[in-house]
Formats: sequence, structure tokens, C-alpha cells
Amino acid sequence: MYVVIPAGGSGTRLWPLSRAAFPKFLHPLTGDTRTLIQATIERLAALAPPERTFVVTGGAHVAPIARQLPDLPAANILVEPSPRDSAAAIGLAAAIIWHRDPEAIMGSFHADHLVGDEALFRETVRLAMRAAAGGQLMTIGITPTAPETGYGYIQQGDPMHIDDAFAVRQFREKPDRETAERWLAEGGYLWNSGMFVWRCEALLEELARQQPALHAGLLRIAEAWDTPEGEEVLGAVWPTLPRVAIDTAVMEGAAAAGRVGTVAGRFGWHDIGDWHTLGDVLAPTKGDNVVLGDDHSRHVSVDTHNTLIVTSGERIVATLGVRDLVVVDTPDAVLICARDRAQEVKQLVELLRQQERAALL
Amino acid sequence: MYVVIPAGGSGTRLWPLSRAAFPKFLHPLTGDTRTLIQATIERLAALAPPERTFVVTGGAHVAPIARQLPDLPAANILVEPSPRDSAAAIGLAAAIIWHRDPEAIMGSFHADHLVGDEALFRETVRLAMRAAAGGQLMTIGITPTAPETGYGYIQQGDPMHIDDAFAVRQFREKPDRETAERWLAEGGYLWNSGMFVWRCEALLEELARQQPALHAGLLRIAEAWDTPEGEEVLGAVWPTLPRVAIDTAVMEGAAAAGRVGTVAGRFGWHDIGDWHTLGDVLAPTKGDNVVLGDDHSRHVSVDTHNTLIVTSGERIVATLGVRDLVVVDTPDAVLICARDRAQEVKQLVELLRQQERAALL
Repeated sequence: MYVVIPAGGSGTRLWPLSRAAFPKFLHPLTGDTRTLIQATIERLAALAPPERTFVVTGGAHVAPIARQLPDLPAANILVEPSPRDSAAAIGLAAAIIWHRDPEAIMGSFHADHLVGDEALFRETVRLAMRAAAGGQLMTIGITPTAPETGYGYIQQGDPMHIDDAFAVRQFREKPDRETAERWLAEGGYLWNSGMFVWRCEALLEELARQQPALHAGLLRIAEAWDTPEGEEVLGAVWPTLPRVAIDTAVMEGAAAAGRVGTVAGRFGWHDIGDWHTLGDVLAPTKGDNVVLGDDHSRHVSVDTHNTLIVTSGERIVATLGVRDLVVVDTPDAVLICARDRAQEVKQLVELLRQQERAALL
Repeated sequence: MYVVIPAGGSGTRLWPLSRAAFPKFLHPLTGDTRTLIQATIERLAALAPPERTFVVTGGAHVAPIARQLPDLPAANILVEPSPRDSAAAIGLAAAIIWHRDPEAIMGSFHADHLVGDEALFRETVRLAMRAAAGGQLMTIGITPTAPETGYGYIQQGDPMHIDDAFAVRQFREKPDRETAERWLAEGGYLWNSGMFVWRCEALLEELARQQPALHAGLLRIAEAWDTPEGEEVLGAVWPTLPRVAIDTAVMEGAAAAGRVGTVAGRFGWHDIGDWHTLGDVLAPTKGDNVVLGDDHSRHVSVDTHNTLIVTSGERIVATLGVRDLVVVDTPDAVLICARDRAQEVKQLVELLRQQERAALL
């Protein structure tokens, strides 16, 4: 199997730690010293050796990724010349791998997810691989544990001939609360984790069918990739590629054509979208508080509860008589936020953007 | 009249802005760009010219005071060789002034108080001067506006022969809430502001009577002060002086002997003891929030209420969905505190002391 990690997105709701130039996957938000992308790579190491592991990312993130993942071959960091959304990023890796190994199966995994039971996670991925061998585009769905309105959903169809694998009837947009509760009660709906497993050839077939311009461009790049003209072709073709998301541009149409399947994951999964979620997911480190940062003694507190404290740099963060807060300290900005308002951090970032404080974004 | 400003005390409850090396009176906590000691000196300028104005302080604070008060003659900054409490500090100024001008009347005023109506304040001080000319040790009491438990009180006795001046029956310790409410209802009790006006000779007489060792030492220093031996005598005698507070060591005994009077001040007075008080006293600057610091645009907020924000340095302080907080940002520490817990900030400082984080104290 090949592993592909599309590492993009700035993680605006994790400001001020996550910045455009240093997004969330580069930060140690795992509860230990590993960054999110380091934990992701470690979790997948038993499924693919470093030579078969690829990261697709923007030029600004190559150097930190190279330093954080010293075992990853330099040539396996695929550098997007400019942001062209997820279909181009994932398609690029698929085309390059397919060109070298037409029978290859690849899995695509986000760089910024947390997984509870890693052995069960790998077992689920292996199950998806077996199903993908038959040509289906497999997704890893997550069995819902709450009526979550922050995720897209996958509606299951008929069972496939492999345990726990089902056809996907359709992808559903983020629901309102009432709908999410109904789906949870009815069953047959999974959270869409954005993790995919497929034969590269199967993805390319769907790209050819649904996104012919993207398919043609990616093939041109892949054919030139391992030649002296690789960089030049990439530079010429990449800016012409359509800017589309893989879910809407490929997966929804493939599902309608009966080519998408899903395996239900029960391994404990979290998309670390905002500070509140992170505080809920990580185990408390100090009373009922979660403290992140490489020196917890930088947090000094009296009577502080249910609060997430993120320290970075040398400063002391002192809290007194507060609860249900998020405090994120960075060298040039500090955030103090009510936990239940963590989704709105992007509004602060928007304010800073309007004020043209580019260095803080 | 002579003006004396004893400028000491670290203001632990105003951590992390106020530090042992840079205490609260050196910070712009006035709502404008002036520091507390600058505002104090300006308020008193109409009562005494710079040549008759003295600041008594520790060696660590001389340089910042000299820079903040460029019009104060350098020789009028009296430097305590070591901390010896308020009786020695105020007594030193009184002895030096008396030695030069035996008829002198001096007023002693803290460096870190805020005053509302400055003209009325000066009128009250002038009244106290007239009463002090008769030999009484005058205090400026503050007519209570609330059952404050954070201040000591002055119990009024018989009226003196000057409007609004009364004998002091006794000084009373900080009361509990019930007592404070009774005193407020009964009348005849004033807050003890720690501001004094007296003939230097009258104070020295009481020192001689109640603190003979302190009196003798201070006279030795004062006699040598304007001679080439001044520094040497100060260095030799100062460490031998008793370490006592002027209230308990002199004023209480003087009151018992019928030598203390008080004038009731109604000019709007605040002892900036903690962040909560400061937030109450200063006018809101941004919605119902008070923002202090020389660039208010460093505070970026969404839905933030009744919060005191103190910025210093270049960092951004961002608040979202919070209320009733104190946030104080400094280059090496940030405090997030519930407003109604601001008195307990000294507990945090005590924790830092136990952790031997001396640079933060």
C-alpha cells in the first residue's frame, strides 16, 4: 500500500498557534511532544514504508515537514507550485504512484486528525484495502457517537461482500441538529472523515470521466515527473488545473455511479477543528485542565477549571478563578476565548485580516 | 509647604505589570499616558515647587523615577540604602527638611493613589496645612462612599477650630463587612488614606517620644546630610534604624495622646490596590471594557464585556466571548483572572516565589 498525506489548510480556528505559514499539522496538538503530522505518519508506518509514503504540500511548508519527518525521502514530499485544492493535490500523488506502479493501492489521510485506537484504525484501513482491490473508491466512515453538526455524513447503501463494508448511497452535507439526531437514531449514517483508499487506476478513471481536464493535466505531469523535464512540466501545467475539491468534484459523482464504498471505523477519531474540540479530546493534564506545551510549569494557576492552556515560548501563563476558557499563548499574540465560542476564532482572524496585520495570519 | 512622596512597595496584586524592580507607581495606570507617580507629582505641583518636593525610594527605583520626573532636582530623590519601612522613610524626609527649615510644614502622599477632583484635593490639603500649623499631626481622611473592608478607618473625635477638621479619636483596623456597614450608617468614620500633613517639628517630637532610637538615628543622618560625610553617616546609621510602620509606630500613639487631627476629603480617592479596583475606577475605553496600554489597537475582540485589558509590548491580545475578566499582558507573563478574584493575584506571585522564578517577581 501507498500512503498519501495531503497537508494543506491553515486551520484558522486554531489561531493564534496555527498560521498560514505554520498550520496546525506542524504543531504538537497530540497531547505528547509529537506534532499532528508526526503522529499521522507514525500511525501509518505499519501500513507503508517511508519509500511508499508521500506528503503533498505547499512550498512554504516543505522545510518544516522535512525536518519533522526525517525518515521521509525528500523526493516523497510533493510540492504544489500553488494552491489548487484537494482534487489536484490527491490526484497528483495518485497519478505519480500509478505511473510507477499501475496496480498500486493508495490511502489518503489528513495530516491533522487524532485517532484513539491505532491498531483498530490500521485494521479498518486494511479492510478498506481489501474492498478497494475490487475497484471501488473506498472511504473510511466513522460510526457516529453524537449528533455532530460539524461533519459531513455518508449514507450507507447495500453491504459489500466484505465484512463491515457497504456501498455509499450518497454523501450528505453537514446537517442541522434535528437532522443529525434523526440520522443518529435511524443508523446507517457515518461521519465523513475524508480518508480514502483506492486503486490509483480507479481514481484516475473517475477523474477521466468527471474531470477530464484535471485528469489530462495530472497525467502530463506524472509522465514527466521522473524525467529531467519534470519541474518544467509541473510549473507549466499546474496553474492550468481546475481548482476543485475531491469530495464534490469526484466522490459525489462516483457515489451516484455506484463506485464508492465505505468501511465503518470505530477506532475513536477526531478532526481537530477548533480549540474546544481539542480540549475535549485530550486527557486532562492538571486537575480538569488540559495544558499543552513542552514545559507545563509555565502554566501557574489558582482555582482554574475546565480550561485549555496552550503555551509556547518562554512566557508564563497565569490563570486565577477562571473556568471554561481557552488560553493560547504565542510569541506575538495571546488568545483568551470562551470554550463554547471556539468556533468563532476565525472571526478574530478575519478582523486581523481587515486590519492588514499579515504577520499574524 | 514641602511635599514628600514615599515611593515603595511592589504592588504584588498588580502582578504581572507591577514587579519588585518596577512597581506599580512607575506604570501608566491612570487612564492616560502618565504613570501613577507622574500624576501624583502633577497633582501636588500647585502646592510645592520642585525644590520643595521630595521622593523617598529604594536604590532600584531611582533611575526610573529620575527619568519619569525630569523637573525634580536629583538631590530631592532620597535613596534608602535598604528597606526600613515607612516610619524611617517618611521620618528621613521630615528630619532633613526640618534641619534646613525648622518651621516647615510637610505633606506626605503615596505615589500610587488616584484622585478625582484635583482642585478639591488641593483645597483639602490646604485646610490640613492650616490645622497642622497649630502643631497637630493631620491626616487626610476620606468620607466613605461604601462599606469598604479593604481600608483602615479613622474614628473622628471633637471638631477642631477649623472647618471640617476633627480630632482623631483612634485609628481602626480594616473592619469586617458588618462593622464597615455599621460605621457607614453611624457616620463619624473616615477611610485612612495614609496622607499626612504636619509641622516637621511636631512629627519629630512624637518620634522622640515614641521611637527614640529612630528619632536619634534620623537626626544624626539629617545633621550630616548636607555635609561631605552625609553618605557615610547614612550608610552607617540607616541599617540600625528600627523597621516600623508610621501608622502603628507613631500615629496611633499620637492619636491616643490627642495630637492627631483629620480633615475629611470628598475629592474622589482610590488606592489602586488591585486590577478589579482599577477597572472600576477608570472610564471604559472600548464598549464597557477598559483597555490600558499605549496602543489600544493591540486589543482585538469579539463579544467581550466588563473586562480590563492591559497591553504592553508589541503582542496582540485577542478576546472572544468573555466577560468579567482581567487580562494583563507583559513580555514575560500573561495573567487571566476573574475580576472578582483580583485580590488573590498575590497567591500567584507567592507560587512563583516558591518556584524561585525570581525574574518574574
